[in-house]
Amino acid sequence: MFSGFTPTEERVPLESVKLLAPVIPRSKVVCVGLNYADHKDDMAVDSPESPLLFLKPNTAIVGPGDTIQIPPVEGRIVHEGELAIVIGRIAKQIKAEDYADYIFGYTIANDVSARDVMFSDGQWARAKGYDTFCPIGPFIETELDTSALDIQTYVDGEPRRHGNTRDMIHGIPEIMAFASDIWTLLPGDLILTGTPAGLGGFVDGQTVDITIDGIGTLSNPARNRVEVD
Amino acid sequence: MFSGFTPTEERVPLESVKLLAPVIPRSKVVCVGLNYADHKDDMAVDSPESPLLFLKPNTAIVGPGDTIQIPPVEGRIVHEGELAIVIGRIAKQIKAEDYADYIFGYTIANDVSARDVMFSDGQWARAKGYDTFCPIGPFIETELDTSALDIQTYVDGEPRRHGNTRDMIHGIPEIMAFASDIWTLLPGDLILTGTPAGLGGFVDGQTVDITIDGIGTLSNPARNRVEVD
Repeated sequence: MFSGFTPTEERVPLESVKLLAPVIPRSKVVCVGLNYADHKDDMAVDSPESPLLFLKPNTAIVGPGDTIQIPPVEGRIVHEGELAIVIGRIAKQIKAEDYADYIFGYTIANDVSARDVMFSDGQWARAKGYDTFCPIGPFIETELDTSALDIQTYVDGEPRRHGNTRDMIHGIPEIMAFASDIWTLLPGDLILTGTPAGLGGFVDGQTVDITIDGIGTLSNPARNRVEVD
Repeated sequence: MFSGFTPTEERVPLESVKLLAPVIPRSKVVCVGLNYADHKDDMAVDSPESPLLFLKPNTAIVGPGDTIQIPPVEGRIVHEGELAIVIGRIAKQIKAEDYADYIFGYTIANDVSARDVMFSDGQWARAKGYDTFCPIGPFIETELDTSALDIQTYVDGEPRRHGNTRDMIHGIPEIMAFASDIWTLLPGDLILTGTPAGLGGFVDGQTVDITIDGIGTLSNPARNRVEVD
């Protein structure tokens, strides 16, 4: 995938196939917190001068149409629709101006979060790390101008969050330089660039759709997790 | 490695080989915070009732003898010597009493942390996620009674931290059940079980040794990171 591919020219109707998650990161899902001014207001905190990063494990990844399994935890489960960078080349201490050389493409991600657990733990790893808490897809778009893309989130077709990538506090070149100064980014790693305003939860039986201009719509139903005896 | 191995009976002197990190997790390094009563006092916080988990990326892993690269960040870099569980089988929502079925063995880990960054970010992912911030080794011990093991940390041969696994707040069976209820644990994933009391930093030119009964000593020199122009 990262060393190039050859289109077969064969065409199949999209409805006839099951799309899988377009990538499973071999290392990390890096997330940028509080990266939209209006969402930072939802959180009642100031954005730090440098990007605030946290991690989701690759075991949280599911694909388009896959079910978000809601675990039996206290409080709301919320959706966070985000533009996700897919890393294409090993990136270590890169310069901001070289950022595009290390990006394979872009997809849509839902940074699903157990909101009360974020606050009770303080650390966000568990609240955002449950299996199925990182739906991605439906495609990786390799040619995309990310400077002003609408991000729309719907629950059962009703609009909830709305934002535009032009309102990011830390832009993609800065994020790529900052993140690659900390940890080596590997091909297939993802960087979720933050969520715009408009907190909203969802419950068992609902469906979350996230639409980003130029990529498409990531749609996932939610169900309460079936517990093991 | 996880499907069994056959000893060749060939013996080589340990000094004649370079040991590598005994495993690179294919998914996660899960860490338990504040898991020793005396270290929790160092942090001036209460331990939560359930284990407080956070993640280090697999790109932070280095092996015995490898150099810890100190990045140019504010404040002290500290060592945290810990007993690490190496997962042997896929573990999802397992029962505490079955924990041993999912463990391949145990090794030593140094949960290296940039202490001021922990507090300035609030989230610990960056402070604990820098490349080389997770030395592990020197061996994986597959037969080990972990109920009362001394953990000793030395800087340039001087004793710093000292603890014993009998003082863990959350024991290994509970940690395994709790963690596997959140995210699927994959073969090779690590769980770092927390660090005992005795905060201590180290600087360029020093060497950190961590000794755990029944496993051995993990030794790593530290150097200031060489910056890319």
